[in-house]
Amino acid sequence: MNPLARLIGVGVGPGDPELMTLKAVRALREADVVAHFAKAGRAGNARAIAAPHMRPGAVELPLRYPVTTEIPTSDPAYSRAIDAFFDLSAETVASHLDQGRTVAVLSEGDPLFYGSYMHLHFRLAHRYPTEVIPGVTSLSGCWSAAGLPLARGDDILSVVPGTLDPDALRDRLAGPDAIAVIKVGRNLAKIREAVAAAGRLDRAVYVERGTMTDARILPLAEKTEGGAPYFAVVLVPAQRPPR
Amino acid sequence: MNPLARLIGVGVGPGDPELMTLKAVRALREADVVAHFAKAGRAGNARAIAAPHMRPGAVELPLRYPVTTEIPTSDPAYSRAIDAFFDLSAETVASHLDQGRTVAVLSEGDPLFYGSYMHLHFRLAHRYPTEVIPGVTSLSGCWSAAGLPLARGDDILSVVPGTLDPDALRDRLAGPDAIAVIKVGRNLAKIREAVAAAGRLDRAVYVERGTMTDARILPLAEKTEGGAPYFAVVLVPAQRPPR
Repeated sequence: MNPLARLIGVGVGPGDPELMTLKAVRALREADVVAHFAKAGRAGNARAIAAPHMRPGAVELPLRYPVTTEIPTSDPAYSRAIDAFFDLSAETVASHLDQGRTVAVLSEGDPLFYGSYMHLHFRLAHRYPTEVIPGVTSLSGCWSAAGLPLARGDDILSVVPGTLDPDALRDRLAGPDAIAVIKVGRNLAKIREAVAAAGRLDRAVYVERGTMTDARILPLAEKTEGGAPYFAVVLVPAQRPPR
Repeated sequence: MNPLARLIGVGVGPGDPELMTLKAVRALREADVVAHFAKAGRAGNARAIAAPHMRPGAVELPLRYPVTTEIPTSDPAYSRAIDAFFDLSAETVASHLDQGRTVAVLSEGDPLFYGSYMHLHFRLAHRYPTEVIPGVTSLSGCWSAAGLPLARGDDILSVVPGTLDPDALRDRLAGPDAIAVIKVGRNLAKIREAVAAAGRLDRAVYVERGTMTDARILPLAEKTEGGAPYFAVVLVPAQRPPR
């Protein structure tokens, strides 16, 4: 192994460029190669946040997701295509590490909190010196923008992907936990039904692009029209009266 | 209301001073008054992290918790003493806001994630222009230091205070969620028993001072001696094989 190799997972925070950490800024200044995941035809938020901090001459390495829209996500062919993509991405990053380069992999939010970076981490962290720089999550960004504390004292806070099936969502919302639903997107109607079934629609808040200048924050009960971005969240405070 | 008044909850991150955000640094530079919660006789981590960024001449406002060690936390007198303290703290902060000052209230980690700041937020945010600057949580700091992704895909991640009673802890650990136990401190033995009862001791990790140079990261099964700080965490990945 080249003794200069360094892999760094860099959390760039939830969207507002000022919500990067000092450590992430330094890592970008020092990186030889800056990799980021991107959908075909899109530049990616993480890259836009990081770009002003990259040093001149740094190599940019976009890792472009394969186009899988024609394959149902339940089809084993979908998993195979995604796994093959992460395998290939890891080997591409490894080829730079083998040249003794420092490779920063950008991650929106926090790298190990539901992020794509972890797929590289699983494949490479045992092979190369690796560091993860945590970031502000989109959840923290959203509840801060809404000024809405979800959990305190002995409350349990559960982070629930909106991709779960309706019964699992309803079960979880029926309990006393504070709930933060992530991965909202086209799951919004299902999430709203689950929140309503649990009798908690009166306190649930919908937040979209929480830390950006075009943020939208409104009661979930009023978000009945239009689509929702994948990164929108639904926040449901714990089942007890606020003081 | 004085039109210049501004209340800002400032998350300073999990401990490593480089894990402050650019926005928190700017807020500290601009603040007229910098308040922080402190235990009697202790300077407080948040203040140490923030100090290099405060502008000369800024007023420091320590909010010192009352000494309550002689009152059991289950005694109503304990709640009354704590509530009275937060009421008084809010009025102290308000007196500066009424002078048209910008008051930054420091918070370790993220201000609205189990932080003391929220007690001021409940009392003041409806009375004064208020902003919350999110921060990197101690949880993100700890799982990044351990290089341990807890949750991905459709996993639910539950944040569970170690202060819960043993049955509630065991119930939660018996489920499939990824679990992050916070507020470990003197609850450590109880937490280890609950993790063991759920058959998950082989994968649980104990992290203490995760982002500091004297971090301790070890299998929970091996953490059988010595005390644990309040801010230590126990990380238990979701109930399914890692890939």
